[in-house]
Amino acid sequence: MNIPRTEQKRVVIIGGGFAGIYLAKSLRRSNYQLVVIDRQNYHTFQPLLYQVSTAGLEPDSIAYPIRKILKKHKNFHFRMATVSAIDAGNSEIETNIGSLQYDYLIIATGTRTNFFGNSSLEHYSMPMKSVPQALNIRSLSLQNFEKADQSEDKGERQALLNFCIVGGGPTGVELAGAFAELKRHVFPKDYQQMDIDEMEIHLFEGSDRLLPPMSETASRKSLEFLKDLGVRVHLNTLVKDYDGDKLITNNGLTFRSRNFIWTAGVTGASIPGIKEESMHEPLNRYRVNRFNQVKGYPKIFALGDIAYMETERYPNGHPQVAQPAIQQGKHLAKNLKLLEKGSSMLPFEYRDKGSLATIGRNKAVADLPFRSFGGFFAWLVWMFVHLMSLVGFRNRVIVFFNWVYNYINYDKAARLIVRPYNLNGKKR
Amino acid sequence: MNIPRTEQKRVVIIGGGFAGIYLAKSLRRSNYQLVVIDRQNYHTFQPLLYQVSTAGLEPDSIAYPIRKILKKHKNFHFRMATVSAIDAGNSEIETNIGSLQYDYLIIATGTRTNFFGNSSLEHYSMPMKSVPQALNIRSLSLQNFEKADQSEDKGERQALLNFCIVGGGPTGVELAGAFAELKRHVFPKDYQQMDIDEMEIHLFEGSDRLLPPMSETASRKSLEFLKDLGVRVHLNTLVKDYDGDKLITNNGLTFRSRNFIWTAGVTGASIPGIKEESMHEPLNRYRVNRFNQVKGYPKIFALGDIAYMETERYPNGHPQVAQPAIQQGKHLAKNLKLLEKGSSMLPFEYRDKGSLATIGRNKAVADLPFRSFGGFFAWLVWMFVHLMSLVGFRNRVIVFFNWVYNYINYDKAARLIVRPYNLNGKKR
Repeated sequence: MNIPRTEQKRVVIIGGGFAGIYLAKSLRRSNYQLVVIDRQNYHTFQPLLYQVSTAGLEPDSIAYPIRKILKKHKNFHFRMATVSAIDAGNSEIETNIGSLQYDYLIIATGTRTNFFGNSSLEHYSMPMKSVPQALNIRSLSLQNFEKADQSEDKGERQALLNFCIVGGGPTGVELAGAFAELKRHVFPKDYQQMDIDEMEIHLFEGSDRLLPPMSETASRKSLEFLKDLGVRVHLNTLVKDYDGDKLITNNGLTFRSRNFIWTAGVTGASIPGIKEESMHEPLNRYRVNRFNQVKGYPKIFALGDIAYMETERYPNGHPQVAQPAIQQGKHLAKNLKLLEKGSSMLPFEYRDKGSLATIGRNKAVADLPFRSFGGFFAWLVWMFVHLMSLVGFRNRVIVFFNWVYNYINYDKAARLIVRPYNLNGKKR
Repeated sequence: MNIPRTEQKRVVIIGGGFAGIYLAKSLRRSNYQLVVIDRQNYHTFQPLLYQVSTAGLEPDSIAYPIRKILKKHKNFHFRMATVSAIDAGNSEIETNIGSLQYDYLIIATGTRTNFFGNSSLEHYSMPMKSVPQALNIRSLSLQNFEKADQSEDKGERQALLNFCIVGGGPTGVELAGAFAELKRHVFPKDYQQMDIDEMEIHLFEGSDRLLPPMSETASRKSLEFLKDLGVRVHLNTLVKDYDGDKLITNNGLTFRSRNFIWTAGVTGASIPGIKEESMHEPLNRYRVNRFNQVKGYPKIFALGDIAYMETERYPNGHPQVAQPAIQQGKHLAKNLKLLEKGSSMLPFEYRDKGSLATIGRNKAVADLPFRSFGGFFAWLVWMFVHLMSLVGFRNRVIVFFNWVYNYINYDKAARLIVRPYNLNGKKR
């Protein structure tokens, strides 16, 4: 890779997610050469991706060019590339645009969608981990509405209007709530000739409650809110198979659906080259010590979702959400600055600030360190926290204006099929 | 097509551009069943497409769902479809989702890019007539910058950073100006390791002046403004060929370039089924009388760019810009309401409100009915007119905020490569 060696030691960060970006930002006043590598040229604010899928926001509201975030850094290089291997022996990584030496390597590649080996699910379902995937969901659902408005076959129409979402975590719950809002407030105006009751929203969760990592209060309230919105929630239900039209659950339910969204699991987006004993199998994460160093590799660090760190308070690792990633990113910046001075590093300790999830208009659930609650106030907290977490003043204003507009007008304005989605001629 | 016949006569509009949308909007309080057909589910505000190409705006700022525009209409149907033929004998059109009978048919399909039969140009150049095409230009230019930052080959780098725009009409001029702004204010911050002078912007125009349909003042001023911005303008120059890397002009110039944007001509997007003598050959437009009736077809009307109407003041037809389309759309609505009452129609008369084009920050040219001028005041007029012409309060606010933000910060925020563009493995 064409990056000149300077007198500064080189820190290479793979991944521009929360962990990578917070680390890079915090290294601004350090004495390192900084290289950030990502497949995309922007950072994605994943917690609001579901609003891109449901026509509430455009990509530029939640995505931010990585070069722009780091434009004030002095010795900074960005490369849009895919990393294929780590060669720890030579302190080098391999990418699709050549190899690169590092002094410190930081793996912050996050997770990818886990289909648990079911190729049919992988083939036909819509995941929602990236901006293009979110836009595909937006296009497909609008295309299916257009087809349904034109279809004279009731069974076909119901398949087109049936939204099946698998996974009762925050993504699935928020997505189901957003589609329910579209059904209630937006689609009836757009499709006046259609019977909107033909649109159904199903949410499938394998465990016995929604938002499993959150409090019982959050689980109960979110279920109640979704039911109020008309979402059919199927607890203790695993989706076994889906062929592009029909889905089958483990307890014998079958549904026809052309909108099948998979948010049911993730696995670490690891890179080949790290020895097996440094991996934590079940979720494919790198075992790291309290300094985020990958076990056995003092110059390689892993951060965020891809890092598995056991601590006294988190004996099974940290939850795979934004906060540990952000905190580890900031913490590693401190440690790299300590290393620069020849000091020893400080151990990481996670401070849980709480969890939030929203379920449509005026409704959210919150687990804060001091209490769990749901309803209008939780919704205000949710909005405030998410607005403030966005990168940059511009994006905050655009998102805030869109939210106010959508709220007052019961509307979602980005109902555009910019790139029609098709499964490349696959069976539908 | 599955649209029920009602007691109301059916008006079928093909095309949701300016002409089609203004006609449809103006028919709200009429006694017709209204069917609008478009390949896309949104109306595109074409005059600002170039800002989508140059990372200034996102699609939702300039595109508006057609169903949303017309949601207050009573007996209204939208179909996302492609019309393949007109069967005037049976008062029917053929589409990819079935045929449809009409009582009145309105053809408002506008124009498509004209490559004058050069398949190589068609193959390798980037046209800019639609939102996806505008996004392709945005992606490709950013991808080429990423590649250039990584390339060690000076010739290769210059090809990647050379922007060649063909056509000195408003689109070409505005695009060249916007790329010049990116070069001056945005890219130097994003690509600090790069020599920004390696980026060149070339604008090719076949005639002896820019903005040929506008005044001499506008031509002179726009040339001056572009030169100030460092754009190299080649007048009296036709691009003869382009092979994906090298372009050749009729006067023997050659350039390497990987960003080749074609805005040099359009031709009517006509639909088969209308007899030849009703067409006006050179630009493939429908000959219409003063009521916009296609010659020889009393129930078929053509509007806007696709309509060729000779009047005393416009013996060679109206200019193919937004205003005649808007005015003809509104006028035909009046005439259809007159027909409904059994009255006779009124002839159309075009009122020229003037022309505008902007060339970057603080600079525009204006031909108003009373005078022609260029500079800061023209730029204010340009902004005001374009903001007010956008559909809907939301889009005006979003565009206005983006403009203010970009102006204050010398920035363009949507520098996102959402869907990387490639010519499908074609030679590059």
